[in-house]
Amino acid sequence: MSTRPRLRALLIDLSGTLHIGNEPTSGAVHALGRLRAANIPFRFCSNTSKESTESIRQRLEAMGFSGEGGIRSEELWTSIGVIGGVLRERGIKRPLILASDSAKEDIMHHLPSGHSDETQPHDAIVMAFAPSQFSYANLDSAFRVLMGEHPSQQGTKFSASEQSEARSRAPLLVTHRSRTLQGSDGALSMALGPFVTALEHASGVSAEIVGKPARSFFQTVIGTFKEAEKSSSSGRGGDELSSSSIAIIGDDVESDLGGGAAELGLWRVLVRTGKYRPGVEKKDGVSPPDEVVDSFASFVEDLLQSLKQ
Amino acid sequence: MSTRPRLRALLIDLSGTLHIGNEPTSGAVHALGRLRAANIPFRFCSNTSKESTESIRQRLEAMGFSGEGGIRSEELWTSIGVIGGVLRERGIKRPLILASDSAKEDIMHHLPSGHSDETQPHDAIVMAFAPSQFSYANLDSAFRVLMGEHPSQQGTKFSASEQSEARSRAPLLVTHRSRTLQGSDGALSMALGPFVTALEHASGVSAEIVGKPARSFFQTVIGTFKEAEKSSSSGRGGDELSSSSIAIIGDDVESDLGGGAAELGLWRVLVRTGKYRPGVEKKDGVSPPDEVVDSFASFVEDLLQSLKQ
Repeated sequence: MSTRPRLRALLIDLSGTLHIGNEPTSGAVHALGRLRAANIPFRFCSNTSKESTESIRQRLEAMGFSGEGGIRSEELWTSIGVIGGVLRERGIKRPLILASDSAKEDIMHHLPSGHSDETQPHDAIVMAFAPSQFSYANLDSAFRVLMGEHPSQQGTKFSASEQSEARSRAPLLVTHRSRTLQGSDGALSMALGPFVTALEHASGVSAEIVGKPARSFFQTVIGTFKEAEKSSSSGRGGDELSSSSIAIIGDDVESDLGGGAAELGLWRVLVRTGKYRPGVEKKDGVSPPDEVVDSFASFVEDLLQSLKQ
Repeated sequence: MSTRPRLRALLIDLSGTLHIGNEPTSGAVHALGRLRAANIPFRFCSNTSKESTESIRQRLEAMGFSGEGGIRSEELWTSIGVIGGVLRERGIKRPLILASDSAKEDIMHHLPSGHSDETQPHDAIVMAFAPSQFSYANLDSAFRVLMGEHPSQQGTKFSASEQSEARSRAPLLVTHRSRTLQGSDGALSMALGPFVTALEHASGVSAEIVGKPARSFFQTVIGTFKEAEKSSSSGRGGDELSSSSIAIIGDDVESDLGGGAAELGLWRVLVRTGKYRPGVEKKDGVSPPDEVVDSFASFVEDLLQSLKQ
């Protein structure tokens, strides 16, 4: 285990790290207040794609995250929150969206006004977890968009030789690809991943993950630290915030700390709460975290102590 | 190309080989009559799992397959037709069935009378192509059966160490795993395969194909030649029918002629009708057929000529 660098900012997972179900993890509210008082900036990173940012914030407030230990909307980042930027950046105008109604609204908010013009071809698939949307008819429509055979694309039908180009024109953007989730009845259920795999298998197109742990997701969120510094009078001036001085803390060594988190060289902290099971950090194919800590609160306590020295 | 052995029986694919859409392939009705007149036994092998055997027979009759060139129910084999035998053989009592209503009826016909007893745990998944059945709720139920977490299995819930045994107790039996099919509007659509893949991906359980080209499917059908010989006075006596004296003819080098067809050493004949595209028989990973012929009728003509010599 290498020595912890001087950390200047924190990315924090929500479910399993900051709270479990509707309860904060032990000491989490107080720890968050202490971080804020110490002027250490933080952002919350969640892959929840079922609800809007504001509804997550309200749910956290109801759990007790208020006052100094409260959470501001601009600190809260989900895959739905970043997808608008991805669509704009790639010039996507009329994605076919498989998502819950509230997530769909959040996404459509970011699209050019003509997105409901049915004479325009669909130019991407956006997929979030939404059981009621996963019918054969909806999945088959998505498949046809990926193949360039959707009715909206008639007249733009691609020849075999254009197929690879056609596919890059209609990417399959997904919020995450978890295989399973724990249902409200305690039994495991299918998550988004298997349905993404079905579309990939049928079409030959590979999905692109927009949420955690995609590098682009973390880059977007880290960018907001820099924005905030620029617009703040207390900015550090020339002393730029580097990835290696940012920590990410979460309970899933792969979904929170893998992929882009490792690629960007973030300081990766695994908590022993939530989904954590002893030994997961030593499994084959897993990039071991930089630190394993008892909880979010214990990490914050230790971090603040070390900064005093 | 090796020399064709003396062929004594024929397995014949339907769609693309005997007919295309609602039209017999050129000369097919006459060729079938000639085979029957020459006392060469044949069976039809189809992976259609959407309709009952009797409805397929009636559809073929309406295309002109009648009289000597007609088709008898006992000659017609689909994956739905063999699945009853598979369930009985494996002692499966209460599968969860994702299939069309008519296919479901065909399958339930083969189950012990207690199959609708809801106090009994589901002990297998049977899956055929049935778009209306592929909802999140149905697929998730199937997933839970595979995981031993279905409500019907409560009290039989398996510990982690029993998981592999639990899975062998609840197999995932599928009629085939084609990726795509041509929709009635001419565009490609998703077939059964991607949904099978989704369940495999979520559960870690591997599907078992019950229809073509599974070895067990061909063995079942070949068994009926032997049954017919035994019960017929014109039996060959001690001269047993071997796999190498049986031909299989179809338009798909993999789904018709691959897998069990190659393993059993059947004489594999590819037709240049239906799905056939020049060169497919030479593709990497494909076991080349023993013969490539213009059509079902031209093969029969040549076969009958050679038998005269």
